[in-house]
Amino acid sequence: MGFVEELEYLRQHTPLTRAVAEGFRARDLRGVRVAFAVHLDIKTVPVLQAVAQTGAEVFVVTCNPATVRDEVCTYLQKLGVQVRAWAGMSEAAWQDSLTWGLNQRPHFLCEMGGELAFRAAQDPKDVRAGMEATGTGVQRLREVKLPFPVLEWNSLPLKEGLHNRYLVGLVTWTTFLHVARVTLYGKRVVVVGYGPVGQGVAEYARLLGAIPVVAELSPDRQVLARYAGCEVAPLHDALPMANVVVTATGRERVLQEEHFLQLQDGTFLLNVGHSNRELDTEALRKYPTRLLRPHVEEVSLPQGRVYLLAAGAMFNLAAGPGDPYDAFDFTSAIWLAGLAHLLDAGPNYPPGLHPMPRQVELEVASFAAGARSSNPKPVPKKGSTTDLGPA
Amino acid sequence: MGFVEELEYLRQHTPLTRAVAEGFRARDLRGVRVAFAVHLDIKTVPVLQAVAQTGAEVFVVTCNPATVRDEVCTYLQKLGVQVRAWAGMSEAAWQDSLTWGLNQRPHFLCEMGGELAFRAAQDPKDVRAGMEATGTGVQRLREVKLPFPVLEWNSLPLKEGLHNRYLVGLVTWTTFLHVARVTLYGKRVVVVGYGPVGQGVAEYARLLGAIPVVAELSPDRQVLARYAGCEVAPLHDALPMANVVVTATGRERVLQEEHFLQLQDGTFLLNVGHSNRELDTEALRKYPTRLLRPHVEEVSLPQGRVYLLAAGAMFNLAAGPGDPYDAFDFTSAIWLAGLAHLLDAGPNYPPGLHPMPRQVELEVASFAAGARSSNPKPVPKKGSTTDLGPA
Amino acid sequence: MGFVEELEYLRQHTPLTRAVAEGFRARDLRGVRVAFAVHLDIKTVPVLQAVAQTGAEVFVVTCNPATVRDEVCTYLQKLGVQVRAWAGMSEAAWQDSLTWGLNQRPHFLCEMGGELAFRAAQDPKDVRAGMEATGTGVQRLREVKLPFPVLEWNSLPLKEGLHNRYLVGLVTWTTFLHVARVTLYGKRVVVVGYGPVGQGVAEYARLLGAIPVVAELSPDRQVLARYAGCEVAPLHDALPMANVVVTATGRERVLQEEHFLQLQDGTFLLNVGHSNRELDTEALRKYPTRLLRPHVEEVSLPQGRVYLLAAGAMFNLAAGPGDPYDAFDFTSAIWLAGLAHLLDAGPNYPPGLHPMPRQVELEVASFAAGARSSNPKPVPKKGSTTDLGPA
Amino acid sequence: MGFVEELEYLRQHTPLTRAVAEGFRARDLRGVRVAFAVHLDIKTVPVLQAVAQTGAEVFVVTCNPATVRDEVCTYLQKLGVQVRAWAGMSEAAWQDSLTWGLNQRPHFLCEMGGELAFRAAQDPKDVRAGMEATGTGVQRLREVKLPFPVLEWNSLPLKEGLHNRYLVGLVTWTTFLHVARVTLYGKRVVVVGYGPVGQGVAEYARLLGAIPVVAELSPDRQVLARYAGCEVAPLHDALPMANVVVTATGRERVLQEEHFLQLQDGTFLLNVGHSNRELDTEALRKYPTRLLRPHVEEVSLPQGRVYLLAAGAMFNLAAGPGDPYDAFDFTSAIWLAGLAHLLDAGPNYPPGLHPMPRQVELEVASFAAGARSSNPKPVPKKGSTTDLGPA
Repeated sequence: MGFVEELEYLRQHTPLTRAVAEGFRARDLRGVRVAFAVHLDIKTVPVLQAVAQTGAEVFVVTCNPATVRDEVCTYLQKLGVQVRAWAGMSEAAWQDSLTWGLNQRPHFLCEMGGELAFRAAQDPKDVRAGMEATGTGVQRLREVKLPFPVLEWNSLPLKEGLHNRYLVGLVTWTTFLHVARVTLYGKRVVVVGYGPVGQGVAEYARLLGAIPVVAELSPDRQVLARYAGCEVAPLHDALPMANVVVTATGRERVLQEEHFLQLQDGTFLLNVGHSNRELDTEALRKYPTRLLRPHVEEVSLPQGRVYLLAAGAMFNLAAGPGDPYDAFDFTSAIWLAGLAHLLDAGPNYPPGLHPMPRQVELEVASFAAGARSSNPKPVPKKGSTTDLGPA
Repeated sequence: MGFVEELEYLRQHTPLTRAVAEGFRARDLRGVRVAFAVHLDIKTVPVLQAVAQTGAEVFVVTCNPATVRDEVCTYLQKLGVQVRAWAGMSEAAWQDSLTWGLNQRPHFLCEMGGELAFRAAQDPKDVRAGMEATGTGVQRLREVKLPFPVLEWNSLPLKEGLHNRYLVGLVTWTTFLHVARVTLYGKRVVVVGYGPVGQGVAEYARLLGAIPVVAELSPDRQVLARYAGCEVAPLHDALPMANVVVTATGRERVLQEEHFLQLQDGTFLLNVGHSNRELDTEALRKYPTRLLRPHVEEVSLPQGRVYLLAAGAMFNLAAGPGDPYDAFDFTSAIWLAGLAHLLDAGPNYPPGLHPMPRQVELEVASFAAGARSSNPKPVPKKGSTTDLGPA
Repeated sequence: MGFVEELEYLRQHTPLTRAVAEGFRARDLRGVRVAFAVHLDIKTVPVLQAVAQTGAEVFVVTCNPATVRDEVCTYLQKLGVQVRAWAGMSEAAWQDSLTWGLNQRPHFLCEMGGELAFRAAQDPKDVRAGMEATGTGVQRLREVKLPFPVLEWNSLPLKEGLHNRYLVGLVTWTTFLHVARVTLYGKRVVVVGYGPVGQGVAEYARLLGAIPVVAELSPDRQVLARYAGCEVAPLHDALPMANVVVTATGRERVLQEEHFLQLQDGTFLLNVGHSNRELDTEALRKYPTRLLRPHVEEVSLPQGRVYLLAAGAMFNLAAGPGDPYDAFDFTSAIWLAGLAHLLDAGPNYPPGLHPMPRQVELEVASFAAGARSSNPKPVPKKGSTTDLGPA
Repeated sequence: MGFVEELEYLRQHTPLTRAVAEGFRARDLRGVRVAFAVHLDIKTVPVLQAVAQTGAEVFVVTCNPATVRDEVCTYLQKLGVQVRAWAGMSEAAWQDSLTWGLNQRPHFLCEMGGELAFRAAQDPKDVRAGMEATGTGVQRLREVKLPFPVLEWNSLPLKEGLHNRYLVGLVTWTTFLHVARVTLYGKRVVVVGYGPVGQGVAEYARLLGAIPVVAELSPDRQVLARYAGCEVAPLHDALPMANVVVTATGRERVLQEEHFLQLQDGTFLLNVGHSNRELDTEALRKYPTRLLRPHVEEVSLPQGRVYLLAAGAMFNLAAGPGDPYDAFDFTSAIWLAGLAHLLDAGPNYPPGLHPMPRQVELEVASFAAGARSSNPKPVPKKGSTTDLGPA
């Protein structure tokens, strides 16, 4: 029982990715160079493997040194992929790896965070087109003038509708039970920020027996929160009655020292927003802290102890497994279908950011519909996506 | 479209009662006299009709003058049943009708409330056995020495498990939306009393978007309320934050003038407990009141207006339809199966109160299981329940 | 207890509309002519009354002869509003009333359905601008070349997010319990169409104990349905196992004779989509029918009976109360805030259809936030919306 | 970060147990000998520690060699408790340890499983009274004639109402997501057995997006399942459509080879019932198996692969953490309050099995109510439970 078995198990639970990959790898991409800057987690392997099987030259760096798993790198290298990343690599080594990636003169970029495209904006060399998965990356690429097209798939409705609406909330609380070893029954869970992620987090807290309290500035989201059975209160009223506080705003330093001093003894603090700095952990750590169990840090404030979970990093990922395999299957299948579109039609787009065509995820959803029937539908072959070109 | 069509529609949605009735009416009960003191509502008709079809002499009075529907009495009389009840009858006329019922020298009593058995305890004449459906009736019969057996079916688990656990809560809020024309979203619903009825009422309020707050004296029920996602607060803390207050304690005058004066402007007041006097309506009506719409009475208290619903009577019954037909089907089928047992084996029991054998409702549940399959199971014939006799 | 008390009760539960109306009626609109083609239901009164109080000349016709309530017309006339509508008016009389409305040479049109604007497109006379509330009206106005601007508020996120997401589903099933007198426990409810309305209908069916089965052509919505705990099946597989079938597609003749013949004995049929013709009732009525209770029509098909509810019209409105008062408060407050914007800034827009600015509903949501606090916020005065002009 | 910190964290989340322990340890029990046969898990420590602090002589063995944690034994020994148990001990060593325990001539027995009391029934030596926590132990002790009283607390309503009704279901699925790494959305979860545990398991599966299907022989429980929104089907119809199968019957070999051969490819198999043999794992292991990840065993049946989780042992305990700390707090507080009653009043009961008085858990619930207020209630001192004696 090890990495190979885990990969086998992952494959068994990602049938959509398998189906898209089957069509994908039928391409002959010899002579094409593709650079990836992505999380080097096991869930990434099936996508990279499919690209490698086309004969393309594949160069891989990480988008985040903290998430690299060495066995993933080793496995990819055996497949002929060139990888420059390792667990525990320094910031300097990471910056070097990004430079290395661009020096391979890739034709296509495929990223989570936009590091390569941001640099290539100055000197694109052979880059014809790129794709970007994250909101953070999209934000960054809006700041530069791109001399090539980049297709962003962060805002595809199905991808976001499932991940944000359901999965972050679900995995946050299943992980909370595992890590904090306490239930939510009758506890007040204060959710700071009621965007799609906050909505899912509040809904699952309520399903699991909590009384959700929403602190949100936007008045229309306050109305939505009340319709979803949440209490709505200003932050300064909500914090003193909290048993658990979750930040989900996407902004930095939402909770600062003055807020922490309002908390009652025994309150849990966690973050599920995209920034690791929604909780001002530096302010917290002015006070005595000690680690009581993995991911559970006790902070002794003047008025009582609070528990900081996962050091304020994204809780569902840092202390838990992130999206389960069957749910991530949508993400990786859309990713691979989007890559197919990038390779087939990407260079036809004008320079700049473009949304990935919605058809890409409808195609994957069609597979999902077919996967439920006993006779799986035929797999799309190369060229099936050529009708998705720029409008 | 009238009473006959409504009765036909009722029959279509009570297949269990139909199935039990088919076996029941095969009995030859000529010469047997049965007296009923029950609600004279359309849902009662199929049971009384089945008894009349056996050739038994059937005498009917009401257990509550306020629930008599004249078209039900007329219909029963056409079937040869002797009825002494009418809408709007006086208290004196009702007392007379009870005396009349006993003067017919019934062999069996079938009741909701125990009026006849209570009187017959002094002078049973020909009474061999009785059955009783309500907790109130059981309470009353505990106060006398019964010279004949009475089988009570109030506490049969399935009957109570469905009615109390689900149906009172469900119908309370569907009726609330219809009568008060407002939603529960984001409103605090204070539930006073967290027994089975209060639990169902709180659960459905939560499902429909409310924030339930439970006021309950028993500490173990307070714990259960927290596990069910309710806030728990002492009554005097809960009332000032209520948007809706529901009493479900089974006790009288739970909310009195001092409580009403704690309510905020716009609060709704309703009762679903067995007593019509849980809300001290006399104390409320010292203040100016006016009826704004059917079942909605505005009371102008010093601190603001509150709305008294259905004059404090059991809200789901007084302002709404009570149990829906398909759900009442369990009740009337168990009632009829219990009657069969009463007639076959009742006189074999020693004098006093006895629980109706659990087998009676298991038999009905078996029909329910069978009713789902395309080939309905054979119907039990007379005598099939003789093995249910006293232990 | 009558119309005046009901109106008083409505006012008590529409504080947002009251707050917006207070600012609205401070306008001096003497000499301004406004024509309305709207439902003449009690919920419409506060909006029309606010306009009348500005001194504007107000002309009112109905957008649907079937929804006119005479006491509403009488009440409005007493306020000085000119009304040409009555319950039971003929089609010809209705067409005349529309012509009458335009002949009053209105400066502004305010509609649900676009009847007046559609006609005025040929000959606008004095029309400067209009507003439109419904998707049907927007569709119709897209077919003509408008010589004046029309602001549509059908797609405002909060309005649609509450009404479609929650209220249609909620009121559909509370009305179902009231009209059909049966519960949803353990019943398969087939929802045809999984747009926002279908999603709400399926969700509330599930909350109330049903097993929802979704029939939907779009593969991405099929995925969403599975995440929401619904079964997904093709229509021809779903119908034979249905206990209840609800159409919510917005299309006509979605269920036809061939579909009805697939249903099992006892199935309920209802529609909540915008078209009254989603169920092909003509095909149903080839078979014997009879009305068993209000809104419940039994149809004897060869294979068994089915129940057609509300003759296939929009069930929540035709057999039930539509949106409850406190929820409609958002709609009527947004309506009135939109009217203020129309009057202040509408003529500045170029001819054609435009979305109502989102700021209009944010302003109402801000009132909602304020209405919860003990000190209500100050009410906006005339001119407060002038910064909402065309982009 | 280690055992001491974990114990500190446990204490922080078990305030009820702390409160009861404070009163308990005030006893002077020098000269009293108490033998325990219990799980040697960290959650057991606070109870044993409280007893040791009274000066009593404490002898500890395990009730299950598979659950012994060595650091727990070491810690207890430091407190002066005599422990005879270690991780990996053989069956023979375990039997020896039970004999050792009785040879210490204990006055009181405190058990989970009844091993010591069963043996002591033959030769009680100095045993005055015992207490028993489990249904299995109660079953076993019914088979012998006990020469001393044993108080059983398995059936206390609050303990069972929380653990069975909520916690098994909750922890089963949070553990499932962690171990199987897949979600429940849209999956059919077949629950075999619909007692209290099965009800909780089905309810939480439904909350997390599954379609629950109940296979249950008892017709009244079938009715309850339908009211809870579950499909009900005979086992042989349910299995071929399952994505997940959970046994919760308390019986052995409920699923046998013939059943396994009905499953579709990819089905998960797990057990939450008290017996580790509800799934006939021997029959499964005739086919090729391999461990793919911890607790996930792939079995290659002729028709496809299935996944056996936690080798068929109680899934929530064997693959997960069991009850969370704050919920177990009720259990350990009731345990300790029961121990107080055993020591004070146990010997006054006649020989044989008796239910623990309900007052014991009401007392703990009262603490729970008090623990919510800012001023904790006073702690009961020795003797406070003497009014709980035999009726």
